[in-house]
Amino acid sequence: MSVKSINAYGAEASTAPIKNVTISRRDVTPQDVEIDILYCGICHSDLHAVHNDWGGTVYPIVPGHEIVGKITKIGEGVTKFKVGDLVGVGCIVDSCRECDHCHDGNEQFCNKGWTVVFNSPDKKYGGITYGGFSESIVVDENYVVNIPETLALAATAPILCAGITVYSPLKHWKAGPGKNVGIIGLGGLGHMAIKIAKAMGAYITVFTTSQAKAEDAERLGADKVVLSSDAGQMKSCPKQDMILDTVSAKHNVNDYLNLLKVDGSLVLVGLPNEPLEVGAFNVVNGRKSFSGSNIGGIAETQEVLDFCAEHNITAEIELIKPEQINEAFERLGKSDVKYRFVVDMRSLRD
Amino acid sequence: MSVKSINAYGAEASTAPIKNVTISRRDVTPQDVEIDILYCGICHSDLHAVHNDWGGTVYPIVPGHEIVGKITKIGEGVTKFKVGDLVGVGCIVDSCRECDHCHDGNEQFCNKGWTVVFNSPDKKYGGITYGGFSESIVVDENYVVNIPETLALAATAPILCAGITVYSPLKHWKAGPGKNVGIIGLGGLGHMAIKIAKAMGAYITVFTTSQAKAEDAERLGADKVVLSSDAGQMKSCPKQDMILDTVSAKHNVNDYLNLLKVDGSLVLVGLPNEPLEVGAFNVVNGRKSFSGSNIGGIAETQEVLDFCAEHNITAEIELIKPEQINEAFERLGKSDVKYRFVVDMRSLRD
Repeated sequence: MSVKSINAYGAEASTAPIKNVTISRRDVTPQDVEIDILYCGICHSDLHAVHNDWGGTVYPIVPGHEIVGKITKIGEGVTKFKVGDLVGVGCIVDSCRECDHCHDGNEQFCNKGWTVVFNSPDKKYGGITYGGFSESIVVDENYVVNIPETLALAATAPILCAGITVYSPLKHWKAGPGKNVGIIGLGGLGHMAIKIAKAMGAYITVFTTSQAKAEDAERLGADKVVLSSDAGQMKSCPKQDMILDTVSAKHNVNDYLNLLKVDGSLVLVGLPNEPLEVGAFNVVNGRKSFSGSNIGGIAETQEVLDFCAEHNITAEIELIKPEQINEAFERLGKSDVKYRFVVDMRSLRD
Repeated sequence: MSVKSINAYGAEASTAPIKNVTISRRDVTPQDVEIDILYCGICHSDLHAVHNDWGGTVYPIVPGHEIVGKITKIGEGVTKFKVGDLVGVGCIVDSCRECDHCHDGNEQFCNKGWTVVFNSPDKKYGGITYGGFSESIVVDENYVVNIPETLALAATAPILCAGITVYSPLKHWKAGPGKNVGIIGLGGLGHMAIKIAKAMGAYITVFTTSQAKAEDAERLGADKVVLSSDAGQMKSCPKQDMILDTVSAKHNVNDYLNLLKVDGSLVLVGLPNEPLEVGAFNVVNGRKSFSGSNIGGIAETQEVLDFCAEHNITAEIELIKPEQINEAFERLGKSDVKYRFVVDMRSLRD
């Protein structure tokens, strides 16, 4: 198989900085498209993976899974895209395509396990996948989505992970008019959740530990902000139909289970390293659930992009250059970003 | 209000034994029925309450919430029952009757909080409620159910708590033909869950730490038994649509979350004193839920009794005399019972 060398940014050890590296990309096969990457968002999972927080990281690692770019080449069998199309690639670049979940468009549940865009064994072509911190990427067209032309391109990148990660559970748990939807944490996921749940028509309550973020939450669309450190505010908070928990550190979930209506769900989309303690009475009384949700399938990723285009929703971003990735990682580790870093990858082709 | 003194069995402190005590019962008001108690089951919650494991116990406490008996007197406004009827009383003896949940027959979700049959402030008549370890009880007819005449009476008592506690979530989470239903723990709740889920038509897998209980599980209706201490058996176990967790001690729930299908639920009906640790990936991957369920409403309690009559289901019991309650509590604390103690209360009237 013909390959070519390209510029990327990656880490060679869990404690090493992100630096310029050279990686190989295959030439397009009949089902592939080749994409010049324009922008790539930075998600907390990139940080976890680089630092090997969850184990299993293979070095060098090239992170990045919120990719937007332009198609430069297509395989002879490609039917959905043409050269010049603006497209996106998120977390999933392959799956078995045979199981019920793949048939249903829920590749994130693939029985054989899906292939992550970075740091994942590539079952079809061998080796380890490299993500979006690179000048280009080659992906099977079935795992590529259209980027609506009306959206600001750099600020659209985070929809590929942050957006779908919150859209999928909000839809699954039926956020909409007449529903009280709580959102814990105002970061990359949380700020997208406010915008999307608001566009769905729900009444939004944001729970934050930071008084400084309260105004921002309202500007982003929150109907109510509750300081979670204030016991009085927590106690008087109206009961919620669902609460989306975007926090990626250990935290007290029982206080939020207590704020759910009967049959309500607290849905975790953050990925804390440590387990969370759930009290028996907190779920038993009121038949409540502590649930989780992980990204969404390819069809739903296209759906959230179209939804965002319809409602003119993009992420609030800080656009940085590749050389600033290390600084961005450090700031992201301290939650010092409003609200998503996006890397301008165009300079990698200069 | 006219009252009368009756014989009961109760505890005067968290460390005191259960002994013969005298309590007062009100005379019937227009909506009340008076019931001579024939049999009363012993549930782990009785033990927790007597020992004040959850706090809030008021002494003397008279436990017992799996009551069957015969009506001896009715108030002038009673329309559903007549003297001589065989009836049951479970956990709930009052609720607000005004909220949406009460209107829907889900008194267990009453917005103002329902009145427990024992150790609960009686909002209507004052004082603290006394449970079924007594010769008689007076209850509003709206919180009394009919006992089907075809069932063995003593073995029917546990349906009032153990039965409804497992029936309600099995029905809510749609146990039935084509569904894999797991049951963790083979005690009072677990053995009823096997019988009921089997009658619903599900394929039953019982998870137990005790090889000795494996044969019993199969006799009770389990299609498959998995020794949870055997990693190989756990790993090869087919994925479950729902798993009902009847364990009342701290335990590892993540191993069971891993055995769920996509969108599956692990439903806790046990009440461990300590919180349970849930890993983020264990719920996030496969959109799984760690949920809870607590008894059921009055209408559903009648429904499970009728269901049990239709399928000839009763509990496996050890019938004891009131003087043996302390010994039974001690054995129950060590899970040494197959599978429910029921106290013959008739001697209290001798």
